[in-house]
Amino acid sequence: MILTVTLNTALDVTYRVPRLLPHASHRVSDVAERPGGKGLNVARVLAALGHEVTATGFAGGRTGAVVRELLARSPGVSDALVPCAGTTRRTLAVVDTASGDTTQFNEPGPLITAPEWSAFLARYDALLAGAGAVALCGSLPPGVPVGAYAVLVRAARAAGVPVLLDTGGEALRRGVAARPEVIKPNAAELAELTGSRDPLPATRDARRRGARAVVASLGPAGLLAATPEGVWRAAPPHPLAGNPTGAGDSAVAGLLSALAEGLDWPARLTRAVALSAATVLAPVAGEFDPRTYEEVRGSVKVTAV
Amino acid sequence: MILTVTLNTALDVTYRVPRLLPHASHRVSDVAERPGGKGLNVARVLAALGHEVTATGFAGGRTGAVVRELLARSPGVSDALVPCAGTTRRTLAVVDTASGDTTQFNEPGPLITAPEWSAFLARYDALLAGAGAVALCGSLPPGVPVGAYAVLVRAARAAGVPVLLDTGGEALRRGVAARPEVIKPNAAELAELTGSRDPLPATRDARRRGARAVVASLGPAGLLAATPEGVWRAAPPHPLAGNPTGAGDSAVAGLLSALAEGLDWPARLTRAVALSAATVLAPVAGEFDPRTYEEVRGSVKVTAV
Repeated sequence: MILTVTLNTALDVTYRVPRLLPHASHRVSDVAERPGGKGLNVARVLAALGHEVTATGFAGGRTGAVVRELLARSPGVSDALVPCAGTTRRTLAVVDTASGDTTQFNEPGPLITAPEWSAFLARYDALLAGAGAVALCGSLPPGVPVGAYAVLVRAARAAGVPVLLDTGGEALRRGVAARPEVIKPNAAELAELTGSRDPLPATRDARRRGARAVVASLGPAGLLAATPEGVWRAAPPHPLAGNPTGAGDSAVAGLLSALAEGLDWPARLTRAVALSAATVLAPVAGEFDPRTYEEVRGSVKVTAV
Repeated sequence: MILTVTLNTALDVTYRVPRLLPHASHRVSDVAERPGGKGLNVARVLAALGHEVTATGFAGGRTGAVVRELLARSPGVSDALVPCAGTTRRTLAVVDTASGDTTQFNEPGPLITAPEWSAFLARYDALLAGAGAVALCGSLPPGVPVGAYAVLVRAARAAGVPVLLDTGGEALRRGVAARPEVIKPNAAELAELTGSRDPLPATRDARRRGARAVVASLGPAGLLAATPEGVWRAAPPHPLAGNPTGAGDSAVAGLLSALAEGLDWPARLTRAVALSAATVLAPVAGEFDPRTYEEVRGSVKVTAV
């Protein structure tokens, strides 16, 4: 089983409007809702790839109940979310159907109390016993200690479970020092962590800070991976036009899926890039298109640096 | 008891953001939710004025459950909403805290089935028996016949209950022909009904179309009322700066409250204008400030035309 952790789960709501005009009134033509937060997106992709997946983190209030209800309908994802008294946030994406551009509104997350955090830690420790790999994903809700990911990385290492950390800012800085197996920063997160805007020295710097491997997601340029086995760039055969929402989460699912299957780094990167591409090209934001995935897989370029 | 009808109820959600920028990501600093749809706003103001109020219309799905839960906490409003299988819409107001401007997103309403419409009509007829006045407010959700308000006006007249109709477009055109006691169009609705942008001839035209009295709400210019007893203008003593959200609903509550108490037209208009003003000046959009109401009441100018 692969375990995904989403401390700040969300209900992702998408509105489609003909054209977004500030200070005007808009008739929403279409409303879509799905469970969100990076770790739940990763869980959904892993399940679609055929893995057994358990999702933990917090869910609370009316929105939390909706997240759990929708999760129950996602085939292959076991719900191990821990209840909290606060209300799970909504994120709203307003898609302008004329331009395809998205305007995003993120509600604040629920305040997590100390007893809730303790209840989560106990649940996490119990789940690690059955996990083959774990992904720690996204932001921390208010109340969770800023060193939370360092605690979770150490617990996974102690249980002998490889751990991938995908977060940013101070949560990443603290987490990386606890020596996770993989981190997957984007360009901005990597620059913030290392102080360098040049990805190659920055990935090496991030390894020195404690990550065993660093996979930087560089948007259209694909992935740059610095690992104990070598340094690689991996990219789709040609630039892709589409919606990048969720592409990073699909890359995380690809890396973790291939790691859990014991594949080598070039194969892990190929899977991650193909899943990202299939997400960018999917008609629904954040979903991935299995046919595109199969097509792109054969043509991903992985080059040793 | 005063009965308010809201066929297209809503959960009104308000987001506050520092500044709205299209195609950017926004951190929402504050989320507020309350029962919405014009008739529920009218009910809340009537209850605050001390009237016994019953609210009917449709509520369904998760959002409908939230509307009913919040309504149960509104003192003085009895919930007589009829369940529907579709999901009650949300309306989202994004308030830009820098400028105070609001950007509005309205979800589509639930599809009402023929059996649900019949169930509503039976409930409405039963409620009319105990009603001293009725307000029919707002848009029609999909599936409700466009002549719905004409049916509801006729049933109220048959039961001897005075009825105020506050809607627009074809629903107003059909409804007015059934001879309601009062209609309260805004300037745009009145122009659409009559084809005239000049409020004085337009209110007279609207009376000829079937309304016993027409009270046009003209924004900062106040109210223009054409009634069997005379024609009046009513306005606050000086222009008001504030948020006009809900000012029209407060005017409806004022008219209906004074009508139910048997007051004459100048007194009805005074109350409507004072409540509108107290809503524009209230710190929270759509609420009214009782102190401002008492203050403005004494200085509303009602002039015979």
